[in-house]
Amino acid sequence: MTRLEQQIQFITEIDKVKNIYRQSYLADGQRKENDAEHSWHITLMAVLLQEYVPGTDLTKVMIMVLIHDLVEIDAGDTYAYDSAGAETKRAREEKAAERIFGLLPEDQGKYFRSLWEEFEEYQTPDAKFAHLLDNFQPLLLNDASGGKSWAEHGVKKSQVYKRNEKIEETSEDVWKCMQAIVQRHINKGNLKDE
Amino acid sequence: MTRLEQQIQFITEIDKVKNIYRQSYLADGQRKENDAEHSWHITLMAVLLQEYVPGTDLTKVMIMVLIHDLVEIDAGDTYAYDSAGAETKRAREEKAAERIFGLLPEDQGKYFRSLWEEFEEYQTPDAKFAHLLDNFQPLLLNDASGGKSWAEHGVKKSQVYKRNEKIEETSEDVWKCMQAIVQRHINKGNLKDE
Repeated sequence: MTRLEQQIQFITEIDKVKNIYRQSYLADGQRKENDAEHSWHITLMAVLLQEYVPGTDLTKVMIMVLIHDLVEIDAGDTYAYDSAGAETKRAREEKAAERIFGLLPEDQGKYFRSLWEEFEEYQTPDAKFAHLLDNFQPLLLNDASGGKSWAEHGVKKSQVYKRNEKIEETSEDVWKCMQAIVQRHINKGNLKDE
Repeated sequence: MTRLEQQIQFITEIDKVKNIYRQSYLADGQRKENDAEHSWHITLMAVLLQEYVPGTDLTKVMIMVLIHDLVEIDAGDTYAYDSAGAETKRAREEKAAERIFGLLPEDQGKYFRSLWEEFEEYQTPDAKFAHLLDNFQPLLLNDASGGKSWAEHGVKKSQVYKRNEKIEETSEDVWKCMQAIVQRHINKGNLKDE
């Protein structure tokens, strides 16, 4: 197989994330969104919001968020507040990363794998910016769609705060905005105040 | 409105491209793909395929393709081989660009608008790379899904060649690959040999 043929095999394989549905509804509340749509949205958000997270590498973060959900082709989407699923998530996703990034020419596969590992480890400024995007976007969609997904899953304020505990150190502006959204949905009864 | 609020307004508005459906089927042939999915796919392809189009600015091309279809929120998708639609396309899209990019803080709106204009003009190496991605991806999906979209619309080889006339000068490798796909689907009867 030529290098281009390997790349095409990967490009065709990853089409499958368009059928991996998340728990967030689109802004219009009509249907849930899939991983490809979510990844597009947060890659574009990276461009707009980088000014709140100075010192990060825009191109690297864009690539990181473009590929961060590809492992779900094999491992499926684990809802942010699904603690049973979370226990087995890591092992399922490692195996998926091995297979999916393994379709690429070795240099490109290793590069994507390393970006995915960096994202998962959630330690570097770039990974923190990527997680900020990954967490902020469903919050905006939840806000636009009337908190539908939170209400459906009986999500608590403490769970949202736990999930977003590193946002404040990443960008105070974004964190304040997120807090205001959370408070609005507690007041409306879509999020539990616990 | 604060700068962040303006950005959020834009981020929420562009969620609508997730409901703009194209004529290409997903690789599995089960449903058509939407603009957000398509844009995600070609942004990722930019990363993998830049090596075939040296001298281009990866970050700029990624942003260009992330936003290239946003005007369709107002203007709708015009099928590549719809000549009646093509006549009014430009005016509809100009108006859409004015409104949609106008939601952003002025500097960001102007930047996106200029990238969109550069894409539309199809003259610079970056715009040529962006169009290569934009045209190659549906060809790959058509190939994977058995040429379904071509067969449905009675598309001719001459139309595909006309649409892709600048690909050869952009990347000979990709062009050869595209030609091989076209020939395969002529042989299968999915594309007309005219």
